[in-house]
Amino acid sequence: MTSVTSLFAPVDADLCQLTENLKQLVGARHPILYAAAEHLFGAGGKRLRPAIVLLISKATSAADITPRHRRLAEITEMIHTASLVHDDVVDESELRRGVPTVHSSFGNRVAVLAGDFLFAQSSWYLANLDNLEVVKLLSQVIMDLAEGEIQQGLNRFDTGLTLEAYLEKSYYKTASLIANSAKAAGVLSDSSSETCRNLYSYGRHIGLAFQIVDDLLDFTGSADALGKPAGSDLRSGNLTAPALYALEEKPYLEVLIEREFAQEGDLKQALALIEDSKGLERSRELATHHAQLAVQHISSLPPSESRQALIQLAEYVLSRSH
Amino acid sequence: MTSVTSLFAPVDADLCQLTENLKQLVGARHPILYAAAEHLFGAGGKRLRPAIVLLISKATSAADITPRHRRLAEITEMIHTASLVHDDVVDESELRRGVPTVHSSFGNRVAVLAGDFLFAQSSWYLANLDNLEVVKLLSQVIMDLAEGEIQQGLNRFDTGLTLEAYLEKSYYKTASLIANSAKAAGVLSDSSSETCRNLYSYGRHIGLAFQIVDDLLDFTGSADALGKPAGSDLRSGNLTAPALYALEEKPYLEVLIEREFAQEGDLKQALALIEDSKGLERSRELATHHAQLAVQHISSLPPSESRQALIQLAEYVLSRSH
Repeated sequence: MTSVTSLFAPVDADLCQLTENLKQLVGARHPILYAAAEHLFGAGGKRLRPAIVLLISKATSAADITPRHRRLAEITEMIHTASLVHDDVVDESELRRGVPTVHSSFGNRVAVLAGDFLFAQSSWYLANLDNLEVVKLLSQVIMDLAEGEIQQGLNRFDTGLTLEAYLEKSYYKTASLIANSAKAAGVLSDSSSETCRNLYSYGRHIGLAFQIVDDLLDFTGSADALGKPAGSDLRSGNLTAPALYALEEKPYLEVLIEREFAQEGDLKQALALIEDSKGLERSRELATHHAQLAVQHISSLPPSESRQALIQLAEYVLSRSH
Repeated sequence: MTSVTSLFAPVDADLCQLTENLKQLVGARHPILYAAAEHLFGAGGKRLRPAIVLLISKATSAADITPRHRRLAEITEMIHTASLVHDDVVDESELRRGVPTVHSSFGNRVAVLAGDFLFAQSSWYLANLDNLEVVKLLSQVIMDLAEGEIQQGLNRFDTGLTLEAYLEKSYYKTASLIANSAKAAGVLSDSSSETCRNLYSYGRHIGLAFQIVDDLLDFTGSADALGKPAGSDLRSGNLTAPALYALEEKPYLEVLIEREFAQEGDLKQALALIEDSKGLERSRELATHHAQLAVQHISSLPPSESRQALIQLAEYVLSRSH
């Protein structure tokens, strides 16, 4: 199994520079945010989103990555981080990647400020890329992230949630950022509109595959590997692919979810029902389907080390589910 | 004394429509946000910012206000409201305009979501105005608002704060939005760059006058009229013009502020020292100075009912301080 770090080798130096820039940007002028910046952009982040932007930039640009590509990668990571910080406030999460969240370490005050500062800085960077199409693509992402968080709030413990609605929410919360920033990288490289559409589809499908695998790991991973207790999503009423598939086979699961696991042992029983269903296997197949679609959409790019990394990334995403 | 509502007569119908649009936008699709929307865009808001945008639009456009001017006015009110909602979380304020804040009524969860949704929707509307200059002006505002909130946090109880730093913070927190959206209205009217600069200066100075008067009222207003206890700013360490001027005359005020009013009667004594100083009078003069500069900057606009309203608005702002 390849490690994700080695996959990002073609853009490794760029990613290090990006992390330093972001730490400086958030931390340097504001002692209040310094600790938060170390926390947010320190060790542990996979930097998946900027890595995809940089790899696509490299795979599509005639010469090397341009400063505007790099700025786009920073914007992508800033929007992602801002939404994480605010999501953790909204969801009242205590842990992320095994470390305490910003709001639990520094309070809601700093978490709201840090998120707002990152959103603000990213919208300013964005405007100054001087490309209206890119501004539109990324402002759509910011809308989608807010919409996804609201939908997730509305649909808690709703056993009538369809798989389509789940995929839509996953698009809003995860895939939209990857899809639109992948396309924006193509726009900055002056790629053809067909290439840009393909880059969008690559991002959309790899984003969905990534989210489905993440949702699967919430059931199959250890608390240690997840950095939070297993079954967290289900417990909070966030119904993901494994639970939705299992509901088709196990009518009693509906009863447990509808009463919000109010009785002793409800959650444990629900987890056992899902484990005993085809939910996990079917979710893995769904992720595989989207990862394959992702790869198909970049097959027409000219062969390069970066294109190869983008293809292997799809395999890597799936490998996490085993 | 003119009421602010009668000043806005030339754009009254437009302001009613704007309020309805914003309530619909935030409330209609999301029951979670419905109550927050009624709360945010219901009775009580002065709608000063969109009124200025609409009056400037009317005063500068050849024919009538265009749909893009109206959209700009909505964006302005959305950005303002989003920042209020998040500021109240950051400052842990319980009351605003005499009613409980969103976070105290509905929790941090809804307050963060509602603010993020408004910021997101405004950045999407903004991108779709299809004018890169306007995108830049308003994204600068979003940056300035975040910067102002951070500076306010950093400078709490700092008796070394200069009047210049106070005015800079006031620009970031209040005047930047009015100045840049006033200029953006001119840009959408295809006004000359000289007119646009003047509109910016009008907004900047009336915004500063407005903020200085607001800060003055925190000392001179009744709790009833303010909708919060008098002296709230001072108590929380937010040093405004009256306190900064008073510090020049009353050395003991520094002692009281530096120890953060830790001893019984400290706050009352500090308020008495400020009352006994020239701080209130000098603050009123400072506000008058900025209101006069505001009026000078729109004297070159062609005479119209709307220009007249913009001039009277400067007088109205000052009249609140008596």
